[in-house]
Amino acid sequence: MPKKDLLAIDGSDQAQFAFDWYLRNMYRDGDQVLLVHVAEYNIDIGLPGRGADVDAICSAVKKRNDEIGNLTDTFMNTLRARHVPAKLLTLQGDKPGDAIIKAAKEEDATSIVMGTRGLGKIRRTLLGSVSEYVVHHAHCPVTIVRNPQEN
Amino acid sequence: MPKKDLLAIDGSDQAQFAFDWYLRNMYRDGDQVLLVHVAEYNIDIGLPGRGADVDAICSAVKKRNDEIGNLTDTFMNTLRARHVPAKLLTLQGDKPGDAIIKAAKEEDATSIVMGTRGLGKIRRTLLGSVSEYVVHHAHCPVTIVRNPQEN
Repeated sequence: MPKKDLLAIDGSDQAQFAFDWYLRNMYRDGDQVLLVHVAEYNIDIGLPGRGADVDAICSAVKKRNDEIGNLTDTFMNTLRARHVPAKLLTLQGDKPGDAIIKAAKEEDATSIVMGTRGLGKIRRTLLGSVSEYVVHHAHCPVTIVRNPQEN
Repeated sequence: MPKKDLLAIDGSDQAQFAFDWYLRNMYRDGDQVLLVHVAEYNIDIGLPGRGADVDAICSAVKKRNDEIGNLTDTFMNTLRARHVPAKLLTLQGDKPGDAIIKAAKEEDATSIVMGTRGLGKIRRTLLGSVSEYVVHHAHCPVTIVRNPQEN
């Protein structure tokens, strides 16, 4: 039976590696891909109590949107070139793990594929990692793709 | 390129589900399977200071070996029936996660597939889980197969 695989991507090398690995090793003809990008804006809106620089914020948001557009275009173009039925979801939120879990449920994904997000051992312990959150909370199988070069 | 997938199994329903899911969704013609079972004996050798009941221990170990033999035979027979090139590794140790990681490296596995081991939230937090250990330490992509019925 064809799968509906949710691929979570960001701008990292890990996400690119996971995407390529998925196409080479897991994708089967007939599977659908749901490409999910959780946009994190991380834009500094100025110190509390000071007036926000509206123009600067707008231009930063616009710039970030363009970057996200370029990023997702590249992934979508690769899928189109290989005739992979694909749908793009751009989500927002400061909890990427939670957004991925919710999208997987709502879209009835049969599996989730993602990179390791490249957190080192210390950061991973302090902050938890998105992939760990997803492994714990997903309703479906999760593949965490680690680039062997990373170790 | 064909993969060499390490499938970690035990006697749990989760492992059976992961095995079936793998064959249905990830296996491709030409891939090799490395079936790994980490035997845990968990045999009570009597209270400290008391003489061990040697006969009872021998018969418990023999019984456990037979159970393991039956378990791995069933998985191997399924693979043979589907003409999947497969190799069986039975390992011992009280740290199954570590044994799996080492086997994956030594055998140059290209991916690891396993179930969730069915630990509930509390046990998982207290004890850590084997799958979590494997996700953190593997040199290669790891697929954690959760049975949707489990939640």
